[in-house]
Amino acid sequence: MDGSRAAVAGRRRVSIKDVARQAGVAVSSVSRVLNDHPNVSAQMRQRVLDAVAALDYERDLLGSSLRRGTTRSVGFLVSDVANTLFADMAKGAESELQQAGYSLVVTNSDGDPARDERSIRLLSNRRVDGLILAVSDETDPQTNRALTQLDNALVLLDRELRGLPRASAVLADHATGMSAAVDHLVGLGHRRIALLGGPLTLRPHRERLDAFKAAHRRRKIAVQPDLVLIGPTVSAEFGRSATARLLALPADVRPTALISGGNLVLIGLLRALHEAGAPVVGQDLSLVSCDDVPLAELHYPPITVVARDTVEMGRVAARLVLERLHGANPRTVTLPTQLVVRSSAVALR
Amino acid sequence: MDGSRAAVAGRRRVSIKDVARQAGVAVSSVSRVLNDHPNVSAQMRQRVLDAVAALDYERDLLGSSLRRGTTRSVGFLVSDVANTLFADMAKGAESELQQAGYSLVVTNSDGDPARDERSIRLLSNRRVDGLILAVSDETDPQTNRALTQLDNALVLLDRELRGLPRASAVLADHATGMSAAVDHLVGLGHRRIALLGGPLTLRPHRERLDAFKAAHRRRKIAVQPDLVLIGPTVSAEFGRSATARLLALPADVRPTALISGGNLVLIGLLRALHEAGAPVVGQDLSLVSCDDVPLAELHYPPITVVARDTVEMGRVAARLVLERLHGANPRTVTLPTQLVVRSSAVALR
Repeated sequence: MDGSRAAVAGRRRVSIKDVARQAGVAVSSVSRVLNDHPNVSAQMRQRVLDAVAALDYERDLLGSSLRRGTTRSVGFLVSDVANTLFADMAKGAESELQQAGYSLVVTNSDGDPARDERSIRLLSNRRVDGLILAVSDETDPQTNRALTQLDNALVLLDRELRGLPRASAVLADHATGMSAAVDHLVGLGHRRIALLGGPLTLRPHRERLDAFKAAHRRRKIAVQPDLVLIGPTVSAEFGRSATARLLALPADVRPTALISGGNLVLIGLLRALHEAGAPVVGQDLSLVSCDDVPLAELHYPPITVVARDTVEMGRVAARLVLERLHGANPRTVTLPTQLVVRSSAVALR
Repeated sequence: MDGSRAAVAGRRRVSIKDVARQAGVAVSSVSRVLNDHPNVSAQMRQRVLDAVAALDYERDLLGSSLRRGTTRSVGFLVSDVANTLFADMAKGAESELQQAGYSLVVTNSDGDPARDERSIRLLSNRRVDGLILAVSDETDPQTNRALTQLDNALVLLDRELRGLPRASAVLADHATGMSAAVDHLVGLGHRRIALLGGPLTLRPHRERLDAFKAAHRRRKIAVQPDLVLIGPTVSAEFGRSATARLLALPADVRPTALISGGNLVLIGLLRALHEAGAPVVGQDLSLVSCDDVPLAELHYPPITVVARDTVEMGRVAARLVLERLHGANPRTVTLPTQLVVRSSAVALR
């Protein structure tokens, strides 16, 4: 194995023996210092650390990790790391893990449960210590089967999987934000409010739809079934086609307000409106979107959103993984959402 | 080691011996089938694969990787994976690597060369097979020293490091796009064009500034030194403060057109314009930005950009790593940029 190791490193690595020789101490003493053993004198510690610095010694992390039975790595499984939502979470998770000496291994499923399953097995075979994951379909039997076979520290990113009592989770309280969004629109006089949501096999979309309906009930307004469009994925393509369909409705049933169930849906929705040329957001049409992104903030007019701290969600997910690795019990943390009122939703004329 | 392995897996893993027993063949035969050895009969192959399927056998990838001297992983080192630019590249790289059976390990430097250096050493200690990297400062001695000590397959993402003849690179031809942008603005009558660029220790910003100056020279227009603002980073903060500074200039020297040197700069630039309330983009002020993002496409008015295929850059980077791992010589691939004309740049009144 040493031969192949040298081939990968491309030069002979400084060994722990070299450090011991340089420091003039036993190999076991070097090992005690590097492993923060309590029975080490300050003098011995300094001598070893000086030798480590002089030789530019770096521990063979992978080798020592394997001996400890850990790889100090955490998998991050999402549908698309280029989606701002997941990119923010990846950033938050990586910054937290980096500080703890862990690496983040990212995989994209492209929304395909079969790829979720393959990635879960691959990451398990790579013996990642933990997994942070937003699976593409909570009800997929293969995905669930692959996950129940793991004993890694699992943290669900805004997902609910019933068969996984040992998983921690970081959730967003979508209900509060969605209720506030409907209340805001109803307060502006809107009664025909459309929701462009995602598949109900994913917690965020289920929770948003439930809250959308509950808010209507509370205000004693009937939900118009034609105005609730549930996409197979929350993509720009869905946002565009759903918006085109809504715009094609007869004027007396056409929605006066739209709620976009995600940042990719918003992109497609705005494309459809640009293509149609009318109605104009903030004038003839009111709009609220889920998740704050630069496009929403800097749109003209700025778009009212249900916001949450996506980078913080990633940070919390990483902390929950580390907690589990240190023996804590699984737990669920729910982060808030709030309505950020801008000027895309206006009083019904 | 088997004990700790079992602890990580949380159940006894099916071993190659179990597969051999189930198939009724020798362990060496199983090994030959799994390693795609040529001297294996179709019948033997089928028997072994049936046993693999029946037992749900999965190879211990990490263990077998170490025996082969490879970890089948590639590091991806950027300043901020939440930046759309790098998120797109990460997506492209991961999709390509996944198909080849490699994993992507992502690290963020937050623009800090000291973190670049630490990450390079950490990834090397983890024995990643290759590294795709956009370092934060091409001239940082520590970063350069850490990189020259590696023999991994290196691919630079739009970076030039002189001391690394063995590195491949995927570059963008920023010069062509920037020349076209200046020509477009000059053609619309603009003479006072501002550039909000990034640090000259990074190739994209150096190449854009050179092309900006060359295009002025070609059109026999003097570059106004006050209008070339070089940020310490290409951040939203820089975009905002630089724009505020330009807007505060006396009317006779104030720029009539701005070129934003990146998608984060654009965010800050638009924030500053929103705050100021005037001038209005596409009316009193012309605007071109570098890199196409939904914010540029869906802004009102839509923003003219110098575009490039950032997902493809990631894909090419991954292919260059895989090429190197298969023994090919390092090489450089340059991808095109092009001006996408929308309505944010208008004829000078």
